[in-house]
Amino acid sequence: MALTIIGTMAFDALETPFGKVDRIIGGSATYAAWAASYFTTPIRQVSIVGGDFPKEEIKALEDRGVEFDGLEIVPDGKSFFWSGKYHMDMNTRDSLITDLNVLAQFDPKIPDSYQDSDYLMLGNLAPAVQMSVLDQLKERPKLIIMDTMNFWMDIALDTLKDVLKRVDLLLVNDGEARQLTGEYSLPKAAKKIREMGPKYVIIKKGEHGALLFHGDKIFSAPALPLEDVFDPTGAGDSFAGGFIGYLSRTDDCSFENMKAAIILGSTMASFCVEKFGPNRLKELTSAEIEARVNEFIKLMEVNIEVSLAVNY
Amino acid sequence: MALTIIGTMAFDALETPFGKVDRIIGGSATYAAWAASYFTTPIRQVSIVGGDFPKEEIKALEDRGVEFDGLEIVPDGKSFFWSGKYHMDMNTRDSLITDLNVLAQFDPKIPDSYQDSDYLMLGNLAPAVQMSVLDQLKERPKLIIMDTMNFWMDIALDTLKDVLKRVDLLLVNDGEARQLTGEYSLPKAAKKIREMGPKYVIIKKGEHGALLFHGDKIFSAPALPLEDVFDPTGAGDSFAGGFIGYLSRTDDCSFENMKAAIILGSTMASFCVEKFGPNRLKELTSAEIEARVNEFIKLMEVNIEVSLAVNY
Repeated sequence: MALTIIGTMAFDALETPFGKVDRIIGGSATYAAWAASYFTTPIRQVSIVGGDFPKEEIKALEDRGVEFDGLEIVPDGKSFFWSGKYHMDMNTRDSLITDLNVLAQFDPKIPDSYQDSDYLMLGNLAPAVQMSVLDQLKERPKLIIMDTMNFWMDIALDTLKDVLKRVDLLLVNDGEARQLTGEYSLPKAAKKIREMGPKYVIIKKGEHGALLFHGDKIFSAPALPLEDVFDPTGAGDSFAGGFIGYLSRTDDCSFENMKAAIILGSTMASFCVEKFGPNRLKELTSAEIEARVNEFIKLMEVNIEVSLAVNY
Repeated sequence: MALTIIGTMAFDALETPFGKVDRIIGGSATYAAWAASYFTTPIRQVSIVGGDFPKEEIKALEDRGVEFDGLEIVPDGKSFFWSGKYHMDMNTRDSLITDLNVLAQFDPKIPDSYQDSDYLMLGNLAPAVQMSVLDQLKERPKLIIMDTMNFWMDIALDTLKDVLKRVDLLLVNDGEARQLTGEYSLPKAAKKIREMGPKYVIIKKGEHGALLFHGDKIFSAPALPLEDVFDPTGAGDSFAGGFIGYLSRTDDCSFENMKAAIILGSTMASFCVEKFGPNRLKELTSAEIEARVNEFIKLMEVNIEVSLAVNY
């Protein structure tokens, strides 16, 4: 099924304990589209870049079934630029530079050709921008998922809550779930978020995996215990892209299928961190993906004869 | 099969965000024995208490198949006493008082009647005490697991490393695994620990579950996402007791069965934290345990048609 992704396409400068790059392709929609492209087509990108954004990067995504009618190119503008440095634990980072550039004027237009997409991912953007996208849709997609971050909770909480009322699933990390709800317990936080609108909540816990909440059901997905995380940038966006890409491919939004989608999202995130930027995501084979999914399955597989477990 | 547990039996004073108790039964061997008693018998306790330790607590454990030939009672001594206060996140705590009392003179004697135990748990004690227990064994048990903590890494690292050479499995939390090895990555830390002796390593991650490492195999067990953790004291010891209790019951030390044992250990830990001290562990029914195990299984259950996952 068709999938629309709204998010950033950008340049990043990254420093990790394993090395640094001064200028590499980044942005939430870039990572999400690369990850989703292994599962579904067409993918319809909505983003904004400057004239400095490489044509060959767009071409590479087009070759994977990504459409760009919704990409605004500002010829004399510069693309969004983010620079960050990761600490040794790779879970915390300092933002060094955030140059919005053309992103400051991002006012996304949903092309008519995108109106029949059944799946929609609202990447981490200003809640007002996410809202504007929802307002332009003539029909509600089958599934709307959104990402956000603590920054928007700090400066645009009311609009964020308005957007939440209109989406099916919220993706946040554990710290953001706690900030949004004031609850330390993640099941309690997820319950409060579901009262705000989304029927499904995914709480990402980095190296500890992810939790999916829906009604009274919970699924706990592990992260792959990796010996080396080379560059965590884009892992969350790759997760989101793999997740919704798989849902779009299978066109099944049941809780059971979302569990599988989380494993596929985790698989794409585990590849993403192996090289700088989206480089690893660009070169995957289906055999590699299948082998990695099998690693996840093995990691979680257990057989217990419950009735034999207890003594007395 | 028979299981020997070496550890503390003690009094605790606890303060959590949910309340406080001035004096409640505690100690690693107490929690481990209660948890293990739901799976196996006999359990053979090796510990030391003062004349102040309640006879009815010992009687209650005897009624569950726990033997006390290896318990030293010092009539005019006082039992080990620990007092702690938990922070809001329940993962961090301050030790307020640590009165060793009779524990300072603990020189465990393994009774002849314990010599045929196939399963041995060395609870978190001074490495020299753990070593003395191993030296007294006429035959090596089928499985020896040990617990330890950062304190012993600080003050008795060499002896700790000597004990490690003689055990099959080490149980530590993530911070301790990192301290012991100087590796941030948990798979790397587990590899280094296995080079120190134990063929199996379990890394406990509190609310994030636990990882089991053996050879090139890894199992990732979730923790139950709990709305309320009432008192985390003893959760790790209940995990260890449930784990080795189940192995002892099934008498199967394969990696596959250890995965099941970790779920049973996690089950007992999840009960432990529901009330102060070991109170919840004292009142469990097999129906409750089976239902909780089924919750864990549901939490991890996922079906993926791997060959259908990838687009191209």
